[in-house]
Amino acid sequence: MKLPVSTEWLLHCASTLAQLDPGATASAAQLADYYDLPAPYLAKQLQALVRAGVLAATTGPRGGFRLGRPPGEVTLLQIVEAVDGAASPYECREIRMRGRGALPEEDCQETCVLAAKMYEAHEAWRRSLAGVTLADILAGLPDTIPARTRSIIAGTPRAPR
Amino acid sequence: MKLPVSTEWLLHCASTLAQLDPGATASAAQLADYYDLPAPYLAKQLQALVRAGVLAATTGPRGGFRLGRPPGEVTLLQIVEAVDGAASPYECREIRMRGRGALPEEDCQETCVLAAKMYEAHEAWRRSLAGVTLADILAGLPDTIPARTRSIIAGTPRAPR
Repeated sequence: MKLPVSTEWLLHCASTLAQLDPGATASAAQLADYYDLPAPYLAKQLQALVRAGVLAATTGPRGGFRLGRPPGEVTLLQIVEAVDGAASPYECREIRMRGRGALPEEDCQETCVLAAKMYEAHEAWRRSLAGVTLADILAGLPDTIPARTRSIIAGTPRAPR
Repeated sequence: MKLPVSTEWLLHCASTLAQLDPGATASAAQLADYYDLPAPYLAKQLQALVRAGVLAATTGPRGGFRLGRPPGEVTLLQIVEAVDGAASPYECREIRMRGRGALPEEDCQETCVLAAKMYEAHEAWRRSLAGVTLADILAGLPDTIPARTRSIIAGTPRAPR
């Protein structure tokens, strides 16, 4: 059970964008430089966050990415599920209806009790991540960090390397 | 984020073994027939449950697998982690220390706040599964099921097909 490596990238990039001045943007190249990431692949992943409404993208010479909602309205769950989807890691293939022990279909109208417990655990994971916003993350950073972040982004060329 | 397909197999096989009479066993071939699963691969996976102490294996012509502990002491978490390991699905590669925005090492003595929240969610998932035992699962089955299970296992050849 593994999340994609890019999950870490996007959690950090979204946190970085949450530290910019209102209306300011950072390009994929700037974010890639900030964390030493492969810019083309990062750009593709950032578009997934745009599709999820977590980020907004603007075009043009000053274009780039910014949060699509206030930091208090972006949860870690939204970011993680934009990267990896919302499917449960447990897949029930209904083996209870197969083989010599197969239960008749009429006894399988309800979700298998084992699958139900696995889905409950996934919901506990989702609830945990849905309870943390980017505003919570920013509140946990040392006071000096946001100004440092803005200064580094501003000092990085906006165009691809 | 996906659990192996065999997670479903082993949750069901352990539940099946929990329904046998005390001391009774079922062979890998019997369990494979019960759920129409590939016997050699299932046997390998059952050994992982033996290593985790969830099952015990006996050899000889009447040999096979039985629970290694009472059903009330086997949790779904133990079964799932015997199959897939206990690692968090989120891997922190410390990108906060890389690139133009790299934080100095002395500012990274504590776990990254984003990683910490991801680990908390994994712990919520683990707690949920650690709270469900095979005894709980059996308690949710219709009363007629355990006798049916025992009868089907008893009517299946013990040796490989």
